[in-house]
Amino acid sequence: MAEGGRYVIGVDLGATKILAASFDVDKGGSIKAASHEVKLRTPSDEGSERLIDSLVEAVESLRTAKAGFECLGLGIAVPGPLDREKGIVRYTPNLGLENYPLAATLGKRLGLEVRLENDVQAGVYGELKAGALRGKKTAVGIFIGTGIGGGIVIDGKLFRGSTGSAGEIGHMIVHEGGPLCGCGNYGCLEAHASRTALAKDSIALAASGRAPKLLDEAGLSFRKYRSSAFAASLNAKEAPIEKAVDRAAFWLGVGMANLVNILNPEAIVLGGGIVARFGKRYVTVARQAMRERLMPGLADSVEILVSELGDLAVPAGAALMALDHGAAQAGGDGNHGSGSGNGEK
Amino acid sequence: MAEGGRYVIGVDLGATKILAASFDVDKGGSIKAASHEVKLRTPSDEGSERLIDSLVEAVESLRTAKAGFECLGLGIAVPGPLDREKGIVRYTPNLGLENYPLAATLGKRLGLEVRLENDVQAGVYGELKAGALRGKKTAVGIFIGTGIGGGIVIDGKLFRGSTGSAGEIGHMIVHEGGPLCGCGNYGCLEAHASRTALAKDSIALAASGRAPKLLDEAGLSFRKYRSSAFAASLNAKEAPIEKAVDRAAFWLGVGMANLVNILNPEAIVLGGGIVARFGKRYVTVARQAMRERLMPGLADSVEILVSELGDLAVPAGAALMALDHGAAQAGGDGNHGSGSGNGEK
Repeated sequence: MAEGGRYVIGVDLGATKILAASFDVDKGGSIKAASHEVKLRTPSDEGSERLIDSLVEAVESLRTAKAGFECLGLGIAVPGPLDREKGIVRYTPNLGLENYPLAATLGKRLGLEVRLENDVQAGVYGELKAGALRGKKTAVGIFIGTGIGGGIVIDGKLFRGSTGSAGEIGHMIVHEGGPLCGCGNYGCLEAHASRTALAKDSIALAASGRAPKLLDEAGLSFRKYRSSAFAASLNAKEAPIEKAVDRAAFWLGVGMANLVNILNPEAIVLGGGIVARFGKRYVTVARQAMRERLMPGLADSVEILVSELGDLAVPAGAALMALDHGAAQAGGDGNHGSGSGNGEK
Repeated sequence: MAEGGRYVIGVDLGATKILAASFDVDKGGSIKAASHEVKLRTPSDEGSERLIDSLVEAVESLRTAKAGFECLGLGIAVPGPLDREKGIVRYTPNLGLENYPLAATLGKRLGLEVRLENDVQAGVYGELKAGALRGKKTAVGIFIGTGIGGGIVIDGKLFRGSTGSAGEIGHMIVHEGGPLCGCGNYGCLEAHASRTALAKDSIALAASGRAPKLLDEAGLSFRKYRSSAFAASLNAKEAPIEKAVDRAAFWLGVGMANLVNILNPEAIVLGGGIVARFGKRYVTVARQAMRERLMPGLADSVEILVSELGDLAVPAGAALMALDHGAAQAGGDGNHGSGSGNGEK
C-alpha cells in the first residue's frame, strides 16, 4: 500500500493524438497533480479495433507505471455528438466512428467502467473543478482548436440544455453571409476564429510568399498549419500572419461579447492550442474587441482567464467526471445522475 | 367579502403608454384572469412628479373598480437598467428618469410595497408562470418592439447572470460591421430585427412612393412607424413592406438559431407588438431561418411559441413577481430572495 495509491484516468481522444493521464485522488475525493501522462498518435483511418488497441495501450501503460495502482474511474472524451448515458459515439468524422459503443467496448477490454464525455465539456469541467474556473458559479469556457467548442457553467455546474447539447458556441453566427463554416452555414464564429479559419487565410499568404517562415514550417500542406507553425511565424514577426492572428482574436472577442451580453458570466476561460501558444497579445486583442461591444456596466463584470490545465484540461475533466459519476452512483452528491429517471429535478 | 377578492396589480411603464392591470389571485397563490386594466398615455417629458401622478391614477382606478379590493402586491416594470432590490431606476432615456427611487416614491403615495422589475424580464416571467412557457425548464423569451429584449429560463427559473443583466440578446452581434445600433455597435440583432430597424427601411420606402398605404398611415414621422401602421400596409399587400418584414423576421431567425445553438432550450416564446400584429407568416419566416442554421438534431428539439398573454405579459409578470416576492419574504419558496445575504447559492 505504501507504493500504491488511488487514481483516476482521463483520456482525450482527438483526431490526431490520444492524450491519457492518471491523476492522484486525495482523501477528499478530488484530484491532485497528474501522476503520469501518455501521448500516442491516433490511428484514425485504421478502423475501430486498431483504435481500441491504442486506447488500451495508453491506459495500460498508466496502470502499470506504478505498483499498487488503484483505479477509481476512467473517463474518455471525444469530439462530436454522443450519448453520454449509453456510452455511444454518434459520429466523429475524423475518427471514423459511427454509433459506436465506445464505453462498453473499451470497458470490456480493460475490466473497468468507462465514462464517455464530449471533449469540450470535459475540458470546461476540468477547469471548473481543478483549474481556472474553480469556485465560479456562472462562467463560459471557450476551446479554440480545429473548431471552436464551448461549455456553460451555471450555478457551479455544467449546463447541458434541454437535450444535452448546450454550448455549441462555435456555430453562433457573428457575420451572417460571412465565410463558409464546416457546418454548412456562413459566418459562424468558428469560420472566423478557429485554427482552421486562420489556416485558410495563412496558407494563401504563405503561398504568395508573404510568410516565408510559416511556409518553411508547414509548406503548403493544410494539415500542417497547426498552432506550433503559427507560433514560429509569430516569433519571426511575420507581419501578415500577425495581422491574420489579430483578426482571428478580434472575431473571438466579438463572440465573447455576445456570450457576455447574453449570459452575464463572472468569467470566461479560454483554452486550446492557439491560446496556449499565441499568448498575451492574442488574449489582449480578443478582450479589447469584447469590451467595445458590451452593454454599459458589463465590461468590468467579467474576468477573462486562460486555461490553467492546458492540454490536461480534457483528460482531467474526463477523469473527474468518471470519479464524480462513481461517487453519485455510490450515493454521492448526484451532480451527474446515474441515468435512471428522467434526469429532471 | 362576497363583493371583494384578493388581487395583485402589475404596471408596464413604457415610453409611450402606461398599462396597469389587476389580477385575481386564487387560493393556491397564483393568478387567474386579469380583472381590470387601465391604459394611459405616458407623460414622458413632463418630469417625474407628473409621471408618478399618472401611475397613482392608474393604480387607484384599479383599486376602486371593485368593492372590498384586497391588494396583495404591486409590481412595476420599466425598460432599462435598474437596481431591483433597492427599487431604483438607473436610467431610462425615454422616460427622463435617472437614479430615481421609483418603488419607494410610488409606494409612499399608494401606501403599498412596490416591487420594481425590468420590463422584458417581467414579460418572460409572466409567460413562464401564467402563459406560453408554463412548465418549461429551459427556455428563452424574446420581446420585439422598439428594441429587442430577452429573458432566459433555466431550471424553471429566470436566469439573472452574475450581476443581474443576463438576457441582453438584442445586442448579440449577428453581422459585425452591419447597421448601426442604438447601443453604438454595428450589426446587433436589434439593429436588424426590431421595429426601429424595420421603420428605418420602411420610412425610406414610403418616402420614395413605394408604400402608399404605409405613407397614408404614418406619414414621414418616424415615431408613427408602429406595429399597427405596418400591419395596415401588410393587409394592403404592399410588396416592399412585406419584403422588409420578411427580412426582419429572417434576422430574428438568425438570432434564434444562435440562442438555440448556445442554450439548447426546450422552447422560445416570441412576444411584443410586432409578433402580435404580424402573425403567422412572420413567425414562419423566422422559424425557417432558424432551422437552417441549427446544429444537427436541434431543429426538432425546440418549440417556437407565441406569447399567450400578449400586452398583459409584462403587467402579469410584474404582478406575479410582487406576489412571489411577498411569499418569499413570508417564508415561501424563496425564488426571489429578500436581498439579505449575498444572493448566491
